[in-house]
Amino acid sequence: MTNALSSPDAAILLISCPDQTGLVAAVTDFIFRNGGNILYLDQHVDQEEGVFFMRVEWALEGFAIPRAALAAAFGAIAAPRQMHFELHFSSDVPKMAVFVSKQGHCLYDILARWQSGEWRVEIPVIVSNHPDMEPVARAFGIPFRHLPISRETRRAVEDEQLALLAGIQPDFIVLARYMQIVSPEFIAHYPNRIINIHHSFLPAFIGAKPYHAAYGRGVKIIGATSHYVTAELDAGPIIEQDIARVNHKDTVEELIRKGKDVEKLVLARAVTCHLRREVLVHGNKTIIFN
Amino acid sequence: MTNALSSPDAAILLISCPDQTGLVAAVTDFIFRNGGNILYLDQHVDQEEGVFFMRVEWALEGFAIPRAALAAAFGAIAAPRQMHFELHFSSDVPKMAVFVSKQGHCLYDILARWQSGEWRVEIPVIVSNHPDMEPVARAFGIPFRHLPISRETRRAVEDEQLALLAGIQPDFIVLARYMQIVSPEFIAHYPNRIINIHHSFLPAFIGAKPYHAAYGRGVKIIGATSHYVTAELDAGPIIEQDIARVNHKDTVEELIRKGKDVEKLVLARAVTCHLRREVLVHGNKTIIFN
Amino acid sequence: MTNALSSPDAAILLISCPDQTGLVAAVTDFIFRNGGNILYLDQHVDQEEGVFFMRVEWALEGFAIPRAALAAAFGAIAAPRQMHFELHFSSDVPKMAVFVSKQGHCLYDILARWQSGEWRVEIPVIVSNHPDMEPVARAFGIPFRHLPISRETRRAVEDEQLALLAGIQPDFIVLARYMQIVSPEFIAHYPNRIINIHHSFLPAFIGAKPYHAAYGRGVKIIGATSHYVTAELDAGPIIEQDIARVNHKDTVEELIRKGKDVEKLVLARAVTCHLRREVLVHGNKTIIFN
Amino acid sequence: MTNALSSPDAAILLISCPDQTGLVAAVTDFIFRNGGNILYLDQHVDQEEGVFFMRVEWALEGFAIPRAALAAAFGAIAAPRQMHFELHFSSDVPKMAVFVSKQGHCLYDILARWQSGEWRVEIPVIVSNHPDMEPVARAFGIPFRHLPISRETRRAVEDEQLALLAGIQPDFIVLARYMQIVSPEFIAHYPNRIINIHHSFLPAFIGAKPYHAAYGRGVKIIGATSHYVTAELDAGPIIEQDIARVNHKDTVEELIRKGKDVEKLVLARAVTCHLRREVLVHGNKTIIFN
Repeated sequence: MTNALSSPDAAILLISCPDQTGLVAAVTDFIFRNGGNILYLDQHVDQEEGVFFMRVEWALEGFAIPRAALAAAFGAIAAPRQMHFELHFSSDVPKMAVFVSKQGHCLYDILARWQSGEWRVEIPVIVSNHPDMEPVARAFGIPFRHLPISRETRRAVEDEQLALLAGIQPDFIVLARYMQIVSPEFIAHYPNRIINIHHSFLPAFIGAKPYHAAYGRGVKIIGATSHYVTAELDAGPIIEQDIARVNHKDTVEELIRKGKDVEKLVLARAVTCHLRREVLVHGNKTIIFN
Repeated sequence: MTNALSSPDAAILLISCPDQTGLVAAVTDFIFRNGGNILYLDQHVDQEEGVFFMRVEWALEGFAIPRAALAAAFGAIAAPRQMHFELHFSSDVPKMAVFVSKQGHCLYDILARWQSGEWRVEIPVIVSNHPDMEPVARAFGIPFRHLPISRETRRAVEDEQLALLAGIQPDFIVLARYMQIVSPEFIAHYPNRIINIHHSFLPAFIGAKPYHAAYGRGVKIIGATSHYVTAELDAGPIIEQDIARVNHKDTVEELIRKGKDVEKLVLARAVTCHLRREVLVHGNKTIIFN
Repeated sequence: MTNALSSPDAAILLISCPDQTGLVAAVTDFIFRNGGNILYLDQHVDQEEGVFFMRVEWALEGFAIPRAALAAAFGAIAAPRQMHFELHFSSDVPKMAVFVSKQGHCLYDILARWQSGEWRVEIPVIVSNHPDMEPVARAFGIPFRHLPISRETRRAVEDEQLALLAGIQPDFIVLARYMQIVSPEFIAHYPNRIINIHHSFLPAFIGAKPYHAAYGRGVKIIGATSHYVTAELDAGPIIEQDIARVNHKDTVEELIRKGKDVEKLVLARAVTCHLRREVLVHGNKTIIFN
Repeated sequence: MTNALSSPDAAILLISCPDQTGLVAAVTDFIFRNGGNILYLDQHVDQEEGVFFMRVEWALEGFAIPRAALAAAFGAIAAPRQMHFELHFSSDVPKMAVFVSKQGHCLYDILARWQSGEWRVEIPVIVSNHPDMEPVARAFGIPFRHLPISRETRRAVEDEQLALLAGIQPDFIVLARYMQIVSPEFIAHYPNRIINIHHSFLPAFIGAKPYHAAYGRGVKIIGATSHYVTAELDAGPIIEQDIARVNHKDTVEELIRKGKDVEKLVLARAVTCHLRREVLVHGNKTIIFN
C-alpha cells in the first residue's frame, strides 16, 4: 500500500508485457544499478493469458538518473521485452475534475477528503448539468460550471465540457453520481481516466433505477461499483465494489439511503487507488496493486 | 431469533393479509385470552402494497386450546380478516430430503450440522444423479439413492424421484449444489418448499458457470444466493445472500474455491431460517422474521 | 425500519417492563380502540432477565387522543404493568449539539447528512477545544464555539459548556471525535443522550491511541464503536460497531486512514438509530429496533 | 495467491532480513540465472523496523539446481545479506495433527476439506481429551487417540502426546477447539507450528467463555481469531480474523451458534495460508503473502 504523502520523492512504474523469464530481475537490476531503493514491489502473472504485470516504487533520493531522463532510460529495458509502462512520480499532484448532477453525497465526501488533506489532489472544477450543488462548491471554494444538458443539446454541451477541460488539463475525471450517459467521443479523450460510481453490484442491475430493480427482485444485499468508463454502458473495468445488507422492511427509499453510504465509500476507495497509481488496466479488467 | 431447541413446546403462526387496523390486537388478544405467553412477535406492513405480515410464537404450556384444535380455533380470527396463515409447532421435527450431484462441500456442511445436533431435522434420504457422494452418505448413516439422469430420461427420472419422495413425505427439499434443472411439474409438488443454492450474487450471473462469468467480467466480489425454486430459472424468492472479496490474482479455480465457503454458509443460513419457521413467502419475495 | 421523513405524523412508544402475559395485547388494544393504525411493531423478551421490550409506531391521523393528552392516557395502561415508557412524535425535529476536536472526518459527514436533508435534525452549535474546525462550521452556517481546555481548566470549561447548552436545550450531544474525557458530572446532565465514537472495536483497545495498539498487536481487522457515554471510560451501552480489514502492509497511519471511514459510518448509523427513536437502553445494553 | 494443487513442481522461498538495496535483484537474478520462471513474487519492507520480507515462488521445471542442493546454493546469496529463509516445495504434502475436545464444528469442516481434496495435507492423527469425536474420526478413517487430561495429569499427558507426535513427525498441529491450555514446554517443540482458533475477536475477550463476556458487554459484532500458539495465552501472532453481526435478540446460545460458523471459516483460512506457505512470522506478527 503506497502512501504518496509519506514518500514524497518516489518513482512508480506500472508495467505489463508478455510473460518471459528474467523480467523481475531486469527491472530490479536497473533500479539497483542506479542506486534506487525499492519501497514496494508487486508482480503478478496471468498464467492463462501469459501476461506479466508489475508495480514497483522506489525512493529517488540518491538515484543516478534524473527525473526527466528516466522514461527514456527505462525505455532501453522495456523495448526489447515489449513492455508497456507508465511512469509516475509520487510528488506530482494530479488534477481531478468532478462531474455531478443533483445528489451531493459523493461530492461532499470527495470535498471533505480533499479539504482535510487526505488526498494529494487538485480539484480545479466541478461541472454539473444542474445548479443544485453550486452552493456546496462555493462553500469549499471550488469553481463550479453549470452546463445544463438535454437530449438535443448533448453533443454541443459535451463539446463545451471538452473545451473547458482542455483549458484545465485534468489528469482524470470523476463522475460523482453524474446521471448522464457520456458519449464514446467524449470518453475517447480520457481513456481509462474517467471514474464512475454505479449504484448497483455490477453486472446486476445495469442502467437506470437499480435500487428500484433490486427492490423488485427482493435481494438481501445491495451494492455499488466503481469502474472506468468505456463506450459500453456500465461495462468498463471494475476498480472497486462493496455491498450493504438490506431486508424486507426496507422500502426503495431506504435502499437508496443505505446505498448512498456504499456508493460514496466505494468511489472514494477507487479514487484513492487511482491517485496512488495502484491501478493497471488490462483489457476490460483492472489489476489493483494494494 | 427463535431457537427451536430452547423452546420445544411453542406454537408459531405466520400470517399475511390485507392491512387493516386492529390486526395485532386481534391476534395477541386471542393468544392472551387463551393463556398463551408470547415469546416473539414481529410484524411488518408493506405500505406500498397494503399487506400485513406477522410472525408470532408463544409458549404452549398452560395454553387453553389443544394442539389439534388450534388451527380451527384461530380460523375464527383469520377468516373475517382474510388472513392466510401457517401454523407450526416448534416440537415437530421436519423431514428434509437432500439432492446433490458431484460436489460435496454443501453436503458435508449440512450433514455436520445435522449430526452434531445444531439442526432439529431428519434427513431421510440423499438423492443424486452421480454416485460420488455415496460414501459420504454412508459415513453419516443416511440412505443414498443414485438416480442417473440424462436429457432423454429426465422426465422418467423425475417421476422416480417423486415416487421415492411420496413414500418419504419430506417437508422440504434442499438442492445442495444439485446441478440439474428441475421441471415445473416437479416444483409444483413442493411450492416454496425446495431450497436451492446458486453460486452467484443473483440476479448477476444467472445460469451455468457463474464463476467463469464473474472472472470474465473482472468483478471484485463474488456471491451466493439461496432461494426457493420456481419455474423460472434462478428467479425464485431469495432467502439469503452473501459475498466474498476476490482480486486480480484469483483464477477461476480460486474463485470456485472461495465461493464454496460462501455457498455452504448461505445455504445453511437459509435452511436455518426455514427450519425455524422464520420465512414467509409473498409473491416473489421473502419476509424473513429474524 | 422507520423513516421519520416518510411518516411525519406518527407516535412512537418505547416500552420496557417486567415480562407478563397480555402486554402486547394491552398496548395494541389501546391503539386500536383509539383509532390508530400500527405502522411498525417490534417486541422482544429477554428470557434470562424476564424483561419485556417493545417499540410501536402508529399513524396519528384520525387518532382519538390529542398529542398533549397521549402520555397521560397511555399512563393508565402503563402504570399497573410497571411499564417505563418514552413517547416521541415523528414530526418533532430534535436538536443535536456536536463536539469536535481537531479531526474533521466525522464532522464533515454529519454536516453533509444534515445539509442534504438526510437527517431530520437541527444542529444549533458545534463546540470544540480547538479552533481548527471553525472554517468548516462557518461554511455550513453553524455557530461554532471555541472553548479551549486544559487539565487545570477542565472543570470550569465544562461549566461553560453546560451553561451554553442550557441556553440551547439540545435533545442530545454527539462527540464526533472529541478527544477529551467528559466528567461524570457533565454526563449526569445528559444520561444516555451523549453519543460517542470510539476508534476501536470495543472492548478491545480501550482508551487512547487504539490504532497504535492494534498495530502493535498485529490484528487483521480494525473497528469502531459508537456508544452512549457513561461515567466509566469507553464502557457505555454500545449502539453500533463495524470493522475494516487491514494487513501487514498497513502502517499506523494507514490504519488511521482506513479507520476514519469506519468511524464516520458507525457514528452516522448510531445517530440515525437515535434520531429514529429505535434505541432503548436497558442497563448497560441497547435494544435496537430496526 | 499460490495454489499448491495447480503448480505441483514449484519452489517457495520465504525470506526476512535487514533492509538494504539490491535484495530483490539478488534473489530474482539467482532464480533467473538458473533457469527458473517466477510464478509469484511479493515483497514488503517494514519501514519502521527496517526489515525486508519476501515470498517468491518459481517453477522447478528446467531449473538448473536440483532440489537437494537448492538450500545450500541459495545460502550463498542469503549469508552475506543476513537473510533468514525457509525453503518449501509445493509438491511436498505436509502432515497435520489435529487436537479437539468435545465440539465438532471445526473438526467436521477440516475433515471435509481434507477428504474432498481441497487441501493437500495428510492427517495422521486426531488427539482428544474426550471420546466424543471418536465416531467422527472413524467415519473419516483417521486414527483417533483419546488421552484424558486433568489438572494433576496434565504434565504426564502432554508427555504422552509428545511421544505420540514424535512417532508421527507432523509438520504442524491444529487446535480445532481444543479446550486445554498447552504448556510452554509443549509449545517449544512446535514453535509457530501450532495453529489455534480462539472464539473471540482478539485482543477482546481473552481466556475462557468469550461469548458469555460478549453477551454481557452487549457487543453488536462477535469474532474469531486464528493465531500461532505462544507461551502467553491468546497472545500469539494472528493469522486471520473475521466477525459476524449479532443483535439484542441473540442469547448466549445464539452467539455460540453464530460464532461456530465464524470459527470454522477463520481456522480454515488460516490453515489454507499455512499450507500454501504464505505465512511468515516476524516477532509477534504475521506477514501474510496473499
